Amino acid sequence: MATYQPPIRDQRFVIEELIGLDRLDGLAGVEPVTPELLGAVLEEAGRLAGEVWAPLNRAGDRQGCRLEDGRVRLPEGFADAYRAFVDGGWNGIGADPQRGGQGLPEVAATATQEMWHGANMALALAPMLSAGATELLAQHGDEPLRARYLERLVSGEWAGTMDLSEPQAGSDLGAVRMQAVPDEAGGCYRLYGEKIYITWGEHEAAENIVHLVLARTPDAPAGHKGLSLFLVPKYLAAADGSLGARNDLRCTGLEEKLGIHASPTCTLRYGDGEGAVGYLVGERHRGLYHMFTMMNESRHKVGVQGVGVAERAYQLARDFARQRVQGRRPGGGEDVPIIAHPDVRRMLMAMRAPTEAMRALALLTAAEMDTARHGADAEARERAQRRVDLLTPLVKAVATEQAVEAASLGIQVHGGVGYTEEAEAAQLLRDVRIAPIYEGTNGILGQDFTLRKVLKDGGETLAALLAEADETVAGLRGAAALSGLGDALAEAVAALRASTERLLVGGDDPLAALTAATPYLMQAGLVLGGWQMGRAALIAHEAVQAGRGDTDFYAAKLHTARFYMRHTLPRAHGYTPAVQGGSDELEAVTDTQW
Amino acid sequence: MATYQPPIRDQRFVIEELIGLDRLDGLAGVEPVTPELLGAVLEEAGRLAGEVWAPLNRAGDRQGCRLEDGRVRLPEGFADAYRAFVDGGWNGIGADPQRGGQGLPEVAATATQEMWHGANMALALAPMLSAGATELLAQHGDEPLRARYLERLVSGEWAGTMDLSEPQAGSDLGAVRMQAVPDEAGGCYRLYGEKIYITWGEHEAAENIVHLVLARTPDAPAGHKGLSLFLVPKYLAAADGSLGARNDLRCTGLEEKLGIHASPTCTLRYGDGEGAVGYLVGERHRGLYHMFTMMNESRHKVGVQGVGVAERAYQLARDFARQRVQGRRPGGGEDVPIIAHPDVRRMLMAMRAPTEAMRALALLTAAEMDTARHGADAEARERAQRRVDLLTPLVKAVATEQAVEAASLGIQVHGGVGYTEEAEAAQLLRDVRIAPIYEGTNGILGQDFTLRKVLKDGGETLAALLAEADETVAGLRGAAALSGLGDALAEAVAALRASTERLLVGGDDPLAALTAATPYLMQAGLVLGGWQMGRAALIAHEAVQAGRGDTDFYAAKLHTARFYMRHTLPRAHGYTPAVQGGSDELEAVTDTQW
Repeated sequence: MATYQPPIRDQRFVIEELIGLDRLDGLAGVEPVTPELLGAVLEEAGRLAGEVWAPLNRAGDRQGCRLEDGRVRLPEGFADAYRAFVDGGWNGIGADPQRGGQGLPEVAATATQEMWHGANMALALAPMLSAGATELLAQHGDEPLRARYLERLVSGEWAGTMDLSEPQAGSDLGAVRMQAVPDEAGGCYRLYGEKIYITWGEHEAAENIVHLVLARTPDAPAGHKGLSLFLVPKYLAAADGSLGARNDLRCTGLEEKLGIHASPTCTLRYGDGEGAVGYLVGERHRGLYHMFTMMNESRHKVGVQGVGVAERAYQLARDFARQRVQGRRPGGGEDVPIIAHPDVRRMLMAMRAPTEAMRALALLTAAEMDTARHGADAEARERAQRRVDLLTPLVKAVATEQAVEAASLGIQVHGGVGYTEEAEAAQLLRDVRIAPIYEGTNGILGQDFTLRKVLKDGGETLAALLAEADETVAGLRGAAALSGLGDALAEAVAALRASTERLLVGGDDPLAALTAATPYLMQAGLVLGGWQMGRAALIAHEAVQAGRGDTDFYAAKLHTARFYMRHTLPRAHGYTPAVQGGSDELEAVTDTQW
Repeated sequence: MATYQPPIRDQRFVIEELIGLDRLDGLAGVEPVTPELLGAVLEEAGRLAGEVWAPLNRAGDRQGCRLEDGRVRLPEGFADAYRAFVDGGWNGIGADPQRGGQGLPEVAATATQEMWHGANMALALAPMLSAGATELLAQHGDEPLRARYLERLVSGEWAGTMDLSEPQAGSDLGAVRMQAVPDEAGGCYRLYGEKIYITWGEHEAAENIVHLVLARTPDAPAGHKGLSLFLVPKYLAAADGSLGARNDLRCTGLEEKLGIHASPTCTLRYGDGEGAVGYLVGERHRGLYHMFTMMNESRHKVGVQGVGVAERAYQLARDFARQRVQGRRPGGGEDVPIIAHPDVRRMLMAMRAPTEAMRALALLTAAEMDTARHGADAEARERAQRRVDLLTPLVKAVATEQAVEAASLGIQVHGGVGYTEEAEAAQLLRDVRIAPIYEGTNGILGQDFTLRKVLKDGGETLAALLAEADETVAGLRGAAALSGLGDALAEAVAALRASTERLLVGGDDPLAALTAATPYLMQAGLVLGGWQMGRAALIAHEAVQAGRGDTDFYAAKLHTARFYMRHTLPRAHGYTPAVQGGSDELEAVTDTQW
């Protein structure tokens, strides 16, 4: 039975050494975090993830969910595992203590999120979607609605969902048709219509489910600007928070999916009877705008999910490679475990190096979120928010692309057995393949990153990060043993600057920018990942030189950083011609030429 | 319902224009092939593939195979579809007419093989494995054995399998334990043991199944050099070819796999009773050597399979993108089918361009096989064989890597629906994910290519191909409209030469060569693919200039070649540092540092 070892050592390295806990000093309304507290939190989360959630992962995939008379049957153990998570206070770990949360900084909460996804991605989706709904209510709900629904959402006693897609409205939510009709007698709206692809849209692991639903009021203009956001509970809540009547909505179908079989993906029908009772959240016709204010956080969480599953795939492949004996090393001798073969080592490192790079970027983004929310001065908050806005689509898209690749490499390391469902490797690929699609396809994110996050501010925010990368280059070149890493990073940074310049100059050609968008995002992701690996190498080198202990960890980090600079980072150069090449040959393809 | 359109136009372009039918002139023992004959053969095969095989693909995946009392139940329609294939004479299309084959050149046979895999990969595995067994018997079997078994294998009335793997013997077949004990009274051997992962190891689509089995005689030395090859029929054949007694072997299990559910992957137990009757094929203790003589052909076929599935994934994604309306083009206007969006076009072309490049290389390799087998003079035969040996691992590994990527992109183009099992896109990824693993993992092939095919002959065979690529560069640079393509190709060829030189110079460091092997193979595959796309661009450009008709096809080929040079080929540069970087940081990782 494969086990999952939460990557606490590397997470602590990133948070304590690469980012630095001192960054959190002076943040208003955030609990102070000592190394001891951080360690205790991660160990405790790791125990639940490793001992309770991870062992359910295989069986959850095999059993899947069933729909019986509108009720969703989860795989065995899932409801209990969810409740253990709620009882442990993990759902609200990063939430405001005034609303029942633990008030820990996002950077610590993010580290725990990685563990849930690494242990059991299908189950981890339940709190992930709840978090989005909770955030929307917290930010935009009026006080009576918050008083009734928020605390139980924060604790996780009640779950939340995000109800966006309809058959004709996926990436383009402007096409949403769901109707919301004012019911003045009832002091509410009545919702009618169908939503699809609702993750954890129905289940009984939580007492109640609070749906945040995009819909259109009768007076609404067409398109994006006519959407409003509604809170539609499965059970209406009384003023004292007790459960009231069942609302007029039901699950009519579960998707049969490639993976995450233990996560019920529901079709929900609203208002087949008297109309589903819903309450407006935020302003009318501003629903999509409200959505976008929390979209970044959901996207960040999907990136973290990618890191978690990639880590799990790495561990699984490494453990297999340690015990599978096959063939000999060059020069002969005894048969060896395949981890001794150069190409297997290469594959394992090709899984691990990008995972560590994206873990660093994901946690760095979380630290910027903390500053953006709680920083002492406005300028620092604003600067941090720009970084969050820039890094979030990058972390989501690049981490999920890499996670799919890592999961596929994990199958490859297993050889024939990896292709059977006997090993968990195939499941990890099936599960994580959704991550580049949901919460904004990676193509949409490429567009968001390139057009809105880079070109719109003239490349300034990115330039500031690359200026920091220049310092990393200088540091690496200053240590003789690391100068080769510095050279590789310098070359990649220069290429990214050239790509950016090209896009800025050609900013009046939207088709060229859209064609370049995804390759440019991938290039940027590899380079910024390289920046973090370069910084990690500097710290690890210094630690080894100073004999700071834990030599295995620091030495491994150096090997991993070297591999990243040699095998992973150079892929960034492969995108340059695509970024700079414009859209001519693609636009030229006529309908009959496809 | 998705349909499959056999890519006959592009296949004919490659065979008739890129390779040239005149190459086949003067080959001894090969049927002369006119464009009319080639067209008729491909149209006819395409009809069976498109109208009979392809429509079964989804249902085959859903139904899968079942094992009942040692009998394998295939999905509905599969046995009939297999028999239609046999009745059409497709199984022996490339085989010697003296043995009942059609005697068509391998280059034509290869084009039909792509169609079977594109239409229904799981079913296409049956004849693919049969072909390996047939070839072994034809090359190494003695006349009495050939007389009894060969003709029906060629026709496909009887199927064949390759029985290599055992639980402890996968990539390292030297660890095979299956016993073969002489039975002098019976004039045969008796086989005892278990084989796993036997593709189409048991079924009733054919009257009989002829297993080619690697086993060890009692006097055999340990390791690779102690293996012999045996023919073990499911039913013994009488001298007149009629079916005799059931042999002592049975299917005891079917693997539950990620994909190719309609292809039964069997565990076979031999000799639980009196011992399974087997006949020695070739020389004792030379079994593995005999295997390797046909391994190249099987590997080539897996590469062709990759091309076929990638083409299918492209067509499916394209057809979806044509009908799925979502969002607007820059500048506004009506909602458009997503094929109008730049990033979707980019994804479609990222599926199509490498597929066309690898189709060209796979067919070129087949043409070299024809020369190697039937060429008029020994020198030409030998030169062609060296090219076959070099190109085969490249086609297998690179085409299958690209097929996995294409299938994954195909899911991405579909968005959310691609992640459900409602679309066929997910199945294609599940199916084709085996291709980088079987018939030699791509890691093993990287090693084969780099050490045995390039370094061993001092890089000569590759150098000769790259000299031809230089001519292509000159041609492209000579046409003003194509000079950019020539520059891109020139740069990539130069980088591949530098990588090769580095490996040749460092030839005394086997660990460095093994670490570089897979990246080097990928680099070479992208560059040689670029060479073929460059040649295709020259022909297409000339055709457009001359107004040779079918302008859509030639214009599309030019767009595709431009895309390849801008988006696909530059990825080759991303491998250079890995190829040249040695093995230090990977070898330095200690057991506890993973």
